[in-house]
Amino acid sequence: MNEFELIKHYFHELSNQDKNVVVGIGDDAAVLDIPKGYQLLVSTDTLVYGVHFLKSDHAFDIAYKSLMVNISDIVAMGGTPKWATLSLTLPDNDDSWLQAFSNGLKKGLDDYSLSLIGGDTTKGSLSITISLLGIVPYNKAIKRQGAKENDIIMVSGDLGGAALAISKDLKFNNKDKEILQRKLLHPMPNVKLGQALIDKANSAIDISDGLSQDLGHILNASNLGATIELHQIPTHPLVKKYKLKKVYELALFGGDDYELCFTVPSIEAANYFSEKFNATKIGIIEKKPGLRGIDDKGQIHDIEIKGYNHFRS
Amino acid sequence: MNEFELIKHYFHELSNQDKNVVVGIGDDAAVLDIPKGYQLLVSTDTLVYGVHFLKSDHAFDIAYKSLMVNISDIVAMGGTPKWATLSLTLPDNDDSWLQAFSNGLKKGLDDYSLSLIGGDTTKGSLSITISLLGIVPYNKAIKRQGAKENDIIMVSGDLGGAALAISKDLKFNNKDKEILQRKLLHPMPNVKLGQALIDKANSAIDISDGLSQDLGHILNASNLGATIELHQIPTHPLVKKYKLKKVYELALFGGDDYELCFTVPSIEAANYFSEKFNATKIGIIEKKPGLRGIDDKGQIHDIEIKGYNHFRS
Repeated sequence: MNEFELIKHYFHELSNQDKNVVVGIGDDAAVLDIPKGYQLLVSTDTLVYGVHFLKSDHAFDIAYKSLMVNISDIVAMGGTPKWATLSLTLPDNDDSWLQAFSNGLKKGLDDYSLSLIGGDTTKGSLSITISLLGIVPYNKAIKRQGAKENDIIMVSGDLGGAALAISKDLKFNNKDKEILQRKLLHPMPNVKLGQALIDKANSAIDISDGLSQDLGHILNASNLGATIELHQIPTHPLVKKYKLKKVYELALFGGDDYELCFTVPSIEAANYFSEKFNATKIGIIEKKPGLRGIDDKGQIHDIEIKGYNHFRS
Repeated sequence: MNEFELIKHYFHELSNQDKNVVVGIGDDAAVLDIPKGYQLLVSTDTLVYGVHFLKSDHAFDIAYKSLMVNISDIVAMGGTPKWATLSLTLPDNDDSWLQAFSNGLKKGLDDYSLSLIGGDTTKGSLSITISLLGIVPYNKAIKRQGAKENDIIMVSGDLGGAALAISKDLKFNNKDKEILQRKLLHPMPNVKLGQALIDKANSAIDISDGLSQDLGHILNASNLGATIELHQIPTHPLVKKYKLKKVYELALFGGDDYELCFTVPSIEAANYFSEKFNATKIGIIEKKPGLRGIDDKGQIHDIEIKGYNHFRS
């Protein structure tokens, strides 16, 4: 099977019938109609073998997660994910791997009603780059830089589960292991929550590198600081079970959760997101720069703004 | 320097002032305004170390070419290239390499008035994925599938120079070597030619894998065949000098030229592109499937539709 047959065999069927896709896979470039009253959102993420996934990870999961991490970026802007391009670099042409990868991609595309509109297939060390295009109502995108003093900081879902899954110093029973692997490999960005943030949230980001670093991006972009209540950080139940003493560390400095962190200007808005989307209030935006945490004894600690990052010095 | 500092240091300044870029580098996703009356074009290409470039290639050239191969796809649709995302996977954080890469990217962005709107930086085996976004007037994109019987087939520029540059069985003098390296590493997609094809050409493609394979894509997509006059194929002067006997082979089956192949329905249109853009008439679209070549003795030969392709069986 050559390059063109490979694309046809594994990926053509994923190029589906969205009415805004004028030309999909199979030409020099895709042609898209952007609906009136909307702006375009563009996000790109690369997943590399040995960094973002391991030999033991299943191709289905790799494909699914590659798509989800990009969807998460579109969701964090308040947008609706629509179209994806895939650049797949492969060491060889392994049919069962490609079939599983194609199935995982299809599942992800179907789960979020997306179409694959193009891409590239090359030979080399395994890596996957997905560019995701989405749309957002005109001038309504939620940025990192919009946080205001006294905004309430909120987090969706629970944190630390994905980081726990890759903790090397712990042994999990089979059931817990399965739950954690799912948490790590099948993030589920919440499109409806992202859309609901429009006109209600002042800033938002997805938590991919850990709460401290990603909230840190909001604080830096907005030139503000924050204090969070450590015991309010929603942590995954298994984080509490396995990491009794370091329960906040995984949430603060771990990564791969793909939940949303956002700030809202009123208690009414905060309550709305708590009730409607099960989001949790964790702190307050302040004028004083830096990130601080209050522990359960009422003591305030400085929190280092750090998390996963490539090329750390 | 960590990942965020690296992006800031080498790439932030490339995110320039295009009025349609509402949010550029530095948020979860870029936000773009698509001008009224236009559709969006999207192209993605990956360049991998050891396949598309070698250790000896300079980072400046790698960056420049990565951008050009994508611009070429937008141009082949009749579009105007506008915005780029960069996914850069690097084995390490080599300052002089990154500075040269950033300079090459800047040169390419400047040459075509593009802005870098986002991307991703990860650690791994060296590879570059660029997604290029462009715009095209509403419903005017030129596809591969539009060729009609009796269309005149045309080619821009000259072919075979890039393939000659990587010929292993030849020794070039220094001056010729420099010319060929430039041909290989600095393709120059002609935006004005692409735009001029609108309402005049029935089909178009960029020649990245060799004339036979890329014209073959037009023929397959349009369910037609073609006969070309081999001695009319415009070949690079050095191809004639160094490959006296195989002068057409490099043009037909080589790659990396990034010229345009397009078909027009009238001799008037063909003459227009010859005079205005120095394009060359090379043959005729026919009902009979397959690709044929007439040699300088008037003999007709079947031409295999093949060229560069990854994962060849």
